[in-house]
Amino acid sequence: MNRNAEEIYAAIAGDPIVSPHGHCDPAWFAENARFKDPTDLILIPDHYLFRMLYSQGVALEDLGIGGSDHDPRAVFRMFADHWHLFLGTPSHAWLSYMFETTFGISAPFSTDTAEEIYDAIDAKLGQPDYLPHALFERFNIEVLATTDGATDDLAAHQAIRDSSWTGRVIPTFRPDAVLDPRDARFAVELDRLGAMTGRDVGGFDGYVQAIRDRRAAFKALGATATDHAIEVLTTDPLDRAEAGAIFARARSGDISDAEAQRFYGHMLTLMAEMSVDDGLVMQLHVGSRRNTNHQIMERFGRDMGADIPVATDWVRGLDGLLNRVGNTPGFSLIAFTLDETTYARELAPMAGHWPCLKIGPPWWFHDSEAGIARYFDQVVETAGYWNLAGFNDDTRAFMSIPARHDVWRRGVAHHLGEQVTRGAFGIEDAHVVARALSTGLARDVYRLGKA
Amino acid sequence: MNRNAEEIYAAIAGDPIVSPHGHCDPAWFAENARFKDPTDLILIPDHYLFRMLYSQGVALEDLGIGGSDHDPRAVFRMFADHWHLFLGTPSHAWLSYMFETTFGISAPFSTDTAEEIYDAIDAKLGQPDYLPHALFERFNIEVLATTDGATDDLAAHQAIRDSSWTGRVIPTFRPDAVLDPRDARFAVELDRLGAMTGRDVGGFDGYVQAIRDRRAAFKALGATATDHAIEVLTTDPLDRAEAGAIFARARSGDISDAEAQRFYGHMLTLMAEMSVDDGLVMQLHVGSRRNTNHQIMERFGRDMGADIPVATDWVRGLDGLLNRVGNTPGFSLIAFTLDETTYARELAPMAGHWPCLKIGPPWWFHDSEAGIARYFDQVVETAGYWNLAGFNDDTRAFMSIPARHDVWRRGVAHHLGEQVTRGAFGIEDAHVVARALSTGLARDVYRLGKA
Amino acid sequence: MNRNAEEIYAAIAGDPIVSPHGHCDPAWFAENARFKDPTDLILIPDHYLFRMLYSQGVALEDLGIGGSDHDPRAVFRMFADHWHLFLGTPSHAWLSYMFETTFGISAPFSTDTAEEIYDAIDAKLGQPDYLPHALFERFNIEVLATTDGATDDLAAHQAIRDSSWTGRVIPTFRPDAVLDPRDARFAVELDRLGAMTGRDVGGFDGYVQAIRDRRAAFKALGATATDHAIEVLTTDPLDRAEAGAIFARARSGDISDAEAQRFYGHMLTLMAEMSVDDGLVMQLHVGSRRNTNHQIMERFGRDMGADIPVATDWVRGLDGLLNRVGNTPGFSLIAFTLDETTYARELAPMAGHWPCLKIGPPWWFHDSEAGIARYFDQVVETAGYWNLAGFNDDTRAFMSIPARHDVWRRGVAHHLGEQVTRGAFGIEDAHVVARALSTGLARDVYRLGKA
Repeated sequence: MNRNAEEIYAAIAGDPIVSPHGHCDPAWFAENARFKDPTDLILIPDHYLFRMLYSQGVALEDLGIGGSDHDPRAVFRMFADHWHLFLGTPSHAWLSYMFETTFGISAPFSTDTAEEIYDAIDAKLGQPDYLPHALFERFNIEVLATTDGATDDLAAHQAIRDSSWTGRVIPTFRPDAVLDPRDARFAVELDRLGAMTGRDVGGFDGYVQAIRDRRAAFKALGATATDHAIEVLTTDPLDRAEAGAIFARARSGDISDAEAQRFYGHMLTLMAEMSVDDGLVMQLHVGSRRNTNHQIMERFGRDMGADIPVATDWVRGLDGLLNRVGNTPGFSLIAFTLDETTYARELAPMAGHWPCLKIGPPWWFHDSEAGIARYFDQVVETAGYWNLAGFNDDTRAFMSIPARHDVWRRGVAHHLGEQVTRGAFGIEDAHVVARALSTGLARDVYRLGKA
Repeated sequence: MNRNAEEIYAAIAGDPIVSPHGHCDPAWFAENARFKDPTDLILIPDHYLFRMLYSQGVALEDLGIGGSDHDPRAVFRMFADHWHLFLGTPSHAWLSYMFETTFGISAPFSTDTAEEIYDAIDAKLGQPDYLPHALFERFNIEVLATTDGATDDLAAHQAIRDSSWTGRVIPTFRPDAVLDPRDARFAVELDRLGAMTGRDVGGFDGYVQAIRDRRAAFKALGATATDHAIEVLTTDPLDRAEAGAIFARARSGDISDAEAQRFYGHMLTLMAEMSVDDGLVMQLHVGSRRNTNHQIMERFGRDMGADIPVATDWVRGLDGLLNRVGNTPGFSLIAFTLDETTYARELAPMAGHWPCLKIGPPWWFHDSEAGIARYFDQVVETAGYWNLAGFNDDTRAFMSIPARHDVWRRGVAHHLGEQVTRGAFGIEDAHVVARALSTGLARDVYRLGKA
Repeated sequence: MNRNAEEIYAAIAGDPIVSPHGHCDPAWFAENARFKDPTDLILIPDHYLFRMLYSQGVALEDLGIGGSDHDPRAVFRMFADHWHLFLGTPSHAWLSYMFETTFGISAPFSTDTAEEIYDAIDAKLGQPDYLPHALFERFNIEVLATTDGATDDLAAHQAIRDSSWTGRVIPTFRPDAVLDPRDARFAVELDRLGAMTGRDVGGFDGYVQAIRDRRAAFKALGATATDHAIEVLTTDPLDRAEAGAIFARARSGDISDAEAQRFYGHMLTLMAEMSVDDGLVMQLHVGSRRNTNHQIMERFGRDMGADIPVATDWVRGLDGLLNRVGNTPGFSLIAFTLDETTYARELAPMAGHWPCLKIGPPWWFHDSEAGIARYFDQVVETAGYWNLAGFNDDTRAFMSIPARHDVWRRGVAHHLGEQVTRGAFGIEDAHVVARALSTGLARDVYRLGKA
């Protein structure tokens, strides 16, 4: 970092954490129980970690993944044995930060220190200041959004609201399983949706109304956004008759992949129209091909590290949706891509035109020091800073949240320091942009209100 | 910039401006009338500017776009209110350069200074040394090429030739509207083409001959190049019978998109063959999907900031054309891409093989400091420097021309300074390359003659 | 290079050369005869060089390419006349290194010095220490793999084995011509395959068995790997009946492009299954469209500089193969791409999951200083270092081998020096990674045994 960057970093390093998109379990905050053990806390939920071990020949069974019986201390030690695999990865940076800053451990992580570090963490997890609420406050989290299926009963969220704890944890409406007929959970989830809302989801109209009901329920518990996972993006609206007919076939399970794709595309545009009505910000996470390793999927289920990015066409993919509601005041859409080639070619030009569109921060594999540098390099010149959505950590690894925001803020400072040094703008402007990127844009774009 | 870069920049900063491709209005130089007002000069013709304002909720009507009634001073002030949106964009750099260098204004642009700056510019526009001819000379423009439709009567170009003014302004033949049956202007433009040339454009042969006639007319007024805008590139030649049959259907309006695409591809290869005959350099600007916002298109027409890049396949797309004329001595083709992934993957390898092919400079959204850096990073190692086409500003914003060439020259100096520092070659070679990139290659590749 | 980089480079600069993939002629080492002349040694086999000359209007006939009659001294001089074309290219770096380090020539290469340099090299080629064996030893080559067609008789390799020379030169099994029905040599090569193995290659079973036989023959002469050139990647397995039926049509020449593509995809997965059996490491070189200039192909044949990269879909392309054998212990697959957009989007995420998959070094046009920097920038954060395959020079230009490894090692040092400087890890870890990248990973991934 040059001196300007250091000054900028110092100014934002201590900002509160605004976390408008992620995958933490709201039950942690409803229950405020101690985290089970270091392995269960750090390794088991983090597919960044176990996918790398698997790539080098470690069996997932031996790590306790998928509920396999395991000795957490032995697994932790095996993890340490393979720590060199993570050199140069963001996981290395996040865990190092967590060991040192969150747990106050100064010994470098290695085979030799693994058990000692395990014990140190385990001991701390039993202390009051390592309970979820205490950590939430220590991490200075202003707001934390979880991601919840359309038919989630949101009981944990309700419990948080009903409790005396004042931490702000809000749900996000993620209806993939009731929108995409190819989702393995589609039939079961639709039945649940009908049961939950009392709507007749045997027909398209009742189905749509049931979704509206659930959006309202999420909103009532503080949700400000929806989220959608999409492998191949299409959003061309169908006419009502065709949508209804395909829905009927989807319900009966007699539907081709191409039809399902068209139906999902239609529903995404319908979700955008609902966002115009209810004000929920729409997030699109596009370009992950899920569960590409069939054997792993069969043995261990989803989210086991075999989701792989594919190329994405945002221009043709969003054409239907944008030409339906893209100019409508009040509609807000955040685009996340795993295809970095679309930053400069598609997303920055689109965000620099469409009033509704904002570019989400570097996502998943690209949420890293070099990924952040590429992001700024490729989006800012065309989209500017005010068409960005700030940062979100997008993690189910609660402990990594401060580390992730810290990497982002360092990346912001590094980028802006360079801008000042090369004369693009002055240090005062850089400070304004830095604060926007650390917290302000996330609050505004996600409609989270002021701090 | 390191010291080598500074030395290189100092050597080329004052070179004349060779502008072989752009969109200035030749009437400015035929009439030499004063520019209307600062808003009309700076904001109204510049879609880089108003698209960003639109993306942040400013209505185009409120900016006076599309001929809407407006108070230019109020619009200029509104622009200043949103100036922070441009932080980090090339527009910010270009306008800052223009305010300071061209208009001698030292106050930073802001809400507070907007009216004072408006007045200062407005006053200068009334002075003789701010008339088009005087600015052309002050900018040290050696040659300026405009871009003109096939049926343009070129009256302004003729008037410039007939006048005593010695500035070199030349037309460029851009026949999209008479080549692509999907162009909304196709039918009207073909009638005009027939009327202008006296050819029977009801049949394919007369149509082709009429195009030849117009090429000759352009060449007679100094044109050295053609230009073609293409969304999806195909160039497979048809046999004459099929071309004629599709043309007949195109004339009657009864043509599918796929047929129109094939016809346009055929015509592009035919244009290449005509270039072999008449020596006009062929430019291809590929990968912009035009007018993607239908509502804006309906209300305001073309070129309103909603043209968005799409991925491009240069290898298969140029296959037909290159295998027809790609080895023919004297044929010259310049490729411009909005898909930066093709720099290293396709264009540099192709330009490093085909004798006809040169790579155009970073285009449109990529004509920026970081865009220029990515360009050099990705093309030079495979194509070298002598397969590049130098720089062109490609702008309708006349006032921004010196600023754009300055950004390029700084980018050249920065790149070459790094090359020298890391030992790729010596400072003498760097100076030779620098001059080639600032002026020499543009002159040579566009066949503009020596200075 | 910063100080850390210099320290790292110094530590690995003298490491032996492990060259697990390349295109040298094994006859050089079987015969140990003097290289013919400087032009025949340096220019004629190097398509990087003559393609650039061709792109600037030099006729291949005038260079002696394709066996045309030529005066080698005159050609060498013509090459020198065009030396400026190579400024900024890796060829410039490789040749400069060779002139200086291998031939001890200090005069810069130019029109003026061309003949003197020609004479100096020619004289040296006549000396014992410039014979192939001596150079092999001087270059400190630990192992050199060649690339050989499935029906190559491997006589040169057998002769090397039978000789007293102890240099390790091994073959690589490259069966494209007997696997891809679109290969112009397919019919002839299949006949040869049958004759060589005594198998009945009229039927699919005999054909498959013949391929197994040849793999065994290669392995017996030291091969540790196979290699496959692929334009468009598909690997979906067919059922045996369909594979047999398509094979029958392929034999009779009555096969569509789409069928041939499916057949080749099937055979690639079958090759992967054979690798599980025999332990040969599988290399895939994907994304080169071969012989795109038809006129050059007709006059001069293959490998004449007109092979151009195309975009590649690794995720869907490898789906069939990986879901067949991707989790099988002992299977090893190295992926080489010409589409750099797949580094971060596809290959790094895939290599960070699949146990079999390693990412090959920057290939062909991307084997260059900037290409290496982009590679590290885009693969390490997701794949780490241990999912990489080290370096291979992939060249038929024997003289350039030390230069190419040196550029790589400098790139490694530069990258790791930056990592240390920014605090990603310490200098001790960097040294371990550096050695792995210079030699260790290549040895391990290619199963070449320890030094």
